[in-house]
Amino acid sequence: MALPFLEKLEAVSRKNNSLVCVGLDVDLDRIPRFLLTDHDPVLTFNKAIIDATCDLVCAYKLNIAFYEAMGVEGLQAFKKILQLIPAGIVKIIDAKRGDIGHTARMYAQTYFEYYGGDAVTASPYLGRDSLQPFLDYEDKCTFVLCLTSNPGSRDFQYMSDGEKPLYQLVADAVNRWNEKGNCGLVVGATHPEELRPVREIGPELPILIPGIGAQGGDVGRTVQFGTDGRGERAIINSSRSIIYASSGEDFAAAAREAAKQLRETINGWRGKP
Amino acid sequence: MALPFLEKLEAVSRKNNSLVCVGLDVDLDRIPRFLLTDHDPVLTFNKAIIDATCDLVCAYKLNIAFYEAMGVEGLQAFKKILQLIPAGIVKIIDAKRGDIGHTARMYAQTYFEYYGGDAVTASPYLGRDSLQPFLDYEDKCTFVLCLTSNPGSRDFQYMSDGEKPLYQLVADAVNRWNEKGNCGLVVGATHPEELRPVREIGPELPILIPGIGAQGGDVGRTVQFGTDGRGERAIINSSRSIIYASSGEDFAAAAREAAKQLRETINGWRGKP
Repeated sequence: MALPFLEKLEAVSRKNNSLVCVGLDVDLDRIPRFLLTDHDPVLTFNKAIIDATCDLVCAYKLNIAFYEAMGVEGLQAFKKILQLIPAGIVKIIDAKRGDIGHTARMYAQTYFEYYGGDAVTASPYLGRDSLQPFLDYEDKCTFVLCLTSNPGSRDFQYMSDGEKPLYQLVADAVNRWNEKGNCGLVVGATHPEELRPVREIGPELPILIPGIGAQGGDVGRTVQFGTDGRGERAIINSSRSIIYASSGEDFAAAAREAAKQLRETINGWRGKP
Repeated sequence: MALPFLEKLEAVSRKNNSLVCVGLDVDLDRIPRFLLTDHDPVLTFNKAIIDATCDLVCAYKLNIAFYEAMGVEGLQAFKKILQLIPAGIVKIIDAKRGDIGHTARMYAQTYFEYYGGDAVTASPYLGRDSLQPFLDYEDKCTFVLCLTSNPGSRDFQYMSDGEKPLYQLVADAVNRWNEKGNCGLVVGATHPEELRPVREIGPELPILIPGIGAQGGDVGRTVQFGTDGRGERAIINSSRSIIYASSGEDFAAAAREAAKQLRETINGWRGKP
């Protein structure tokens, strides 16, 4: 019997004293040049980053788009990288899928069974029945997009029904759908003020927070408003500013240093009112 | 220079006198048993369906979830099937992706370049910048989810800002973003009445309409309200009721018969006020 998601998250966050998630979004154009002569540069790069950071993080997040873009070989690497992540660490597949139930079942099976993810990201647009096949995996976690980190988040997510903006209606709904304790939300660190109402709506929900680092999110307010009452249940993701901290032979050591610094900055804000 | 999408769609719709799109959403559990001993049952099944129906349709739609669920081999088959589709017929990759710009670029490249799709489906939730990398392909088409065919479409898509429901705001926005004539919308045939305001908002937009057949959408009103003033620019998709019309050795002939019947039913309603 697998450990339920929230127990796994709590155990690793405490063991590594960390809310840091490293985003393994690897682009062949951005990895150190000298690796390109390697037999499998994507796998080698990821292995080095994982080895250098796995005692400093609670999770790794892999955006499948980066691997799909490398064709069938990229997805073979994707599967192997997920297998390289040490067992206690949370593996999040960032797929942002949303499809009708019949199709969503295919996606859920692919990410949870074939690739072995502990969690996925999903879109709310198609509503409850499009998420149900993911929620049927009780020990996994489904992080539903609430307020995204990009500028286009203003186009529809702030639309108000007169009482609440759409992103808060999504948070409300996901909080209701969290009957098995296997739901979470995605809120970008570029909107730290909005983390406050979202955390109020779902005091127990884990929140996956991308947008720190290259996207410029504010760490202090993200931690203050995004964590729960015990300074937990926030998973703060940084991708590019950790994995591409150096493009030289020291890339893994530089990634370790960047992850360590982020962990310390975050921990400095945890538990502050 | 590739033909722009709308010209390609018009040419094939007129040549085959058809608004029918066949959804090649293939599930190993549902294809005829006798094919399972074949070297590559998924490819063989799809090839037989394509051969039997390609003079009756304007498009094929492949939902990538079904192929991803079969692992890396499934995606190899996916690529081959897209290559099997005769050149003049529209190839729609149903992926419903939506991610931040940086990642959306990866997806656009994958579907338009690596897999060679003419069109993709995408989610509106992340707004304009999440769609821009798709729209940068001027000769392709991006069908944005507007009102989906599933029951969960009621959860958020009808939310009103006091003037309009979200699905109409999405239609408005996509119509504004259609500067290059390469946008479309997805509206489920299970909501035929709502096709009317959507068609009014975007008189020029091609509308991809799933939900006929197994999902129970109404053909007559779908055609009346979904087509443009000339009875065109609607792509009416049916998957299961065509490709699984028979589970015997006659599956391809049965699929041909089902596609022909659907084409005729649709054509009977075209141009009626």
